[in-house]
Amino acid sequence: MIAFDKKISFESKRNDIVTVGELLIDMISADYSDNFDCNTYHKSFGGSPSNIAMNVTKLGLNSLVFSAVGNDGFGTFLVNQLNDAGIDTSCVQRVNRSTSMVVVTKSKSTPIPIFYRQADYHLDYTPSLEEALLNSKIVHFSCWPISMLPARHTIERMIETARSHGVLVCFDPNFHPMIWQAGENGVAYVKSILSKVDIVKPSEDDAERLFGKDTHLNQVGKFLELGAKLVIMTLGKNGALISNGTDTIRMDTLATEVVDTTGAGDAFWSGFYAGLVKGYTVRESLRLGMAVSAFKLKHSGAVVNSLDIEEVKGIFRV
Amino acid sequence: MIAFDKKISFESKRNDIVTVGELLIDMISADYSDNFDCNTYHKSFGGSPSNIAMNVTKLGLNSLVFSAVGNDGFGTFLVNQLNDAGIDTSCVQRVNRSTSMVVVTKSKSTPIPIFYRQADYHLDYTPSLEEALLNSKIVHFSCWPISMLPARHTIERMIETARSHGVLVCFDPNFHPMIWQAGENGVAYVKSILSKVDIVKPSEDDAERLFGKDTHLNQVGKFLELGAKLVIMTLGKNGALISNGTDTIRMDTLATEVVDTTGAGDAFWSGFYAGLVKGYTVRESLRLGMAVSAFKLKHSGAVVNSLDIEEVKGIFRV
Repeated sequence: MIAFDKKISFESKRNDIVTVGELLIDMISADYSDNFDCNTYHKSFGGSPSNIAMNVTKLGLNSLVFSAVGNDGFGTFLVNQLNDAGIDTSCVQRVNRSTSMVVVTKSKSTPIPIFYRQADYHLDYTPSLEEALLNSKIVHFSCWPISMLPARHTIERMIETARSHGVLVCFDPNFHPMIWQAGENGVAYVKSILSKVDIVKPSEDDAERLFGKDTHLNQVGKFLELGAKLVIMTLGKNGALISNGTDTIRMDTLATEVVDTTGAGDAFWSGFYAGLVKGYTVRESLRLGMAVSAFKLKHSGAVVNSLDIEEVKGIFRV
Repeated sequence: MIAFDKKISFESKRNDIVTVGELLIDMISADYSDNFDCNTYHKSFGGSPSNIAMNVTKLGLNSLVFSAVGNDGFGTFLVNQLNDAGIDTSCVQRVNRSTSMVVVTKSKSTPIPIFYRQADYHLDYTPSLEEALLNSKIVHFSCWPISMLPARHTIERMIETARSHGVLVCFDPNFHPMIWQAGENGVAYVKSILSKVDIVKPSEDDAERLFGKDTHLNQVGKFLELGAKLVIMTLGKNGALISNGTDTIRMDTLATEVVDTTGAGDAFWSGFYAGLVKGYTVRESLRLGMAVSAFKLKHSGAVVNSLDIEEVKGIFRV
């Protein structure tokens, strides 16, 4: 059991965390539009696991990214961004597909992204990937790599290796039907993988896409029933509901000012991981996650350049 | 034989020309760069066959586009652009793939595009497509739809139908290895299709990619040997070399001012088609093609909004 008032103990490893999954270009419209009639777009570094790697590095952890990008200018741009941030890119694979991209229009209603998935899911399980995994404390992955082959098989092998070697397995069930192949039952697959992970952090939307509408407590119960050991359900301005199957706790948000919600969930993960690796208890780590998320909400953009753990702790008194 | 001083006679059909192939978003960098480090991109209507449809409509022909785009905002944008230009879009298929896109940085050296092919090659042969084809005088296609399945099979069936019903078959062998699947012999496939087409218009680069370096006359001979009935090899500022297998003629460029070469080849096709449909001889039609191309070269952009056949004829005295 993952007890709230205990630390998670890790073996001494040279790397703290491996994030696995989409490393891609976000192509975001300059203007607001609901129908892609805007003509100007700005490219930016994107992909939730890579944003977490960026954040945790700023918070003082060693991180390593497992992703596949194209042998093209966009791939080089992304790798350079990671290198500039001090992240180990030795496991970023360059493949003969175009670097994946998501085009989004800023929208006052619900933006509908257009997905261009090419390189990202061509992630292979390699000896150097396994070596890096065995020398890491935590492995984190999202729904993107499990949604398509061959990356799905890579994740399956990684989970197996991680579990048999004491690497903590964390999963962001950011399920979106549009990243799945038409006709494939993505919901069933995501559910099937929950028995193999230690920690899962669904949002309300993630839970609803997987299980339909229900109370927060019931949703958390479903993740536990399927085998996750710690479920952190984030509830936006209503904080979070967290359960290890024995104890269930509620945490309030620490947010005081909301400028931009982009990347708030990744910021939570990042603070939480920083806490775990630095030897905080699970409860303290959760609170650091809430603080980093609150700090991110005060700034625009998916990753806050000025993220600093001492500043965050000072502001939010964690 | 396609004689230079004769007209090509067409049955009376309600539509003049069908263009088949890529209808896509060109995402072009605002600034010059050789390594995709520019951040701002402008989207525009793109795809050579669709640009020809745009041009010939301005020149007074009826045109119809056969293409596949996504059920997304970009697909809607492209269809709206065609509709606004007066082009029949009843055969533009909306498919459950993202609308294809090409990202290009403006470059002082050779720009290397990044291809995002998704919807474009999911073009199916449908009854409405066949009905439209049978009611057209000319069918034009490019290398894009033959480079991948299922669009390749659609083109093969279209060629068969066109040949057995007196529809003129014209092919732009704009071969580029990057649009082909890795490991597939695109050159061999393009060569194999030449026996089934009436008119082919290679550029020097196209010929070199298909046959290696050789003299212009030899290159033209290779297209003829493989079965094309009329070969129009465009040579940029050196005009064009054209052969029907019996007679070979040279035409000078009519260009007086070169502002932007983008779309010059499509402009040539457009003027040539306009001539053929309006009852000009082949030689006169070729000259109209040269004139429309020269007009295009004076303007920036792939399609010239102000394209007007009387103005073109006036300027270039054709």
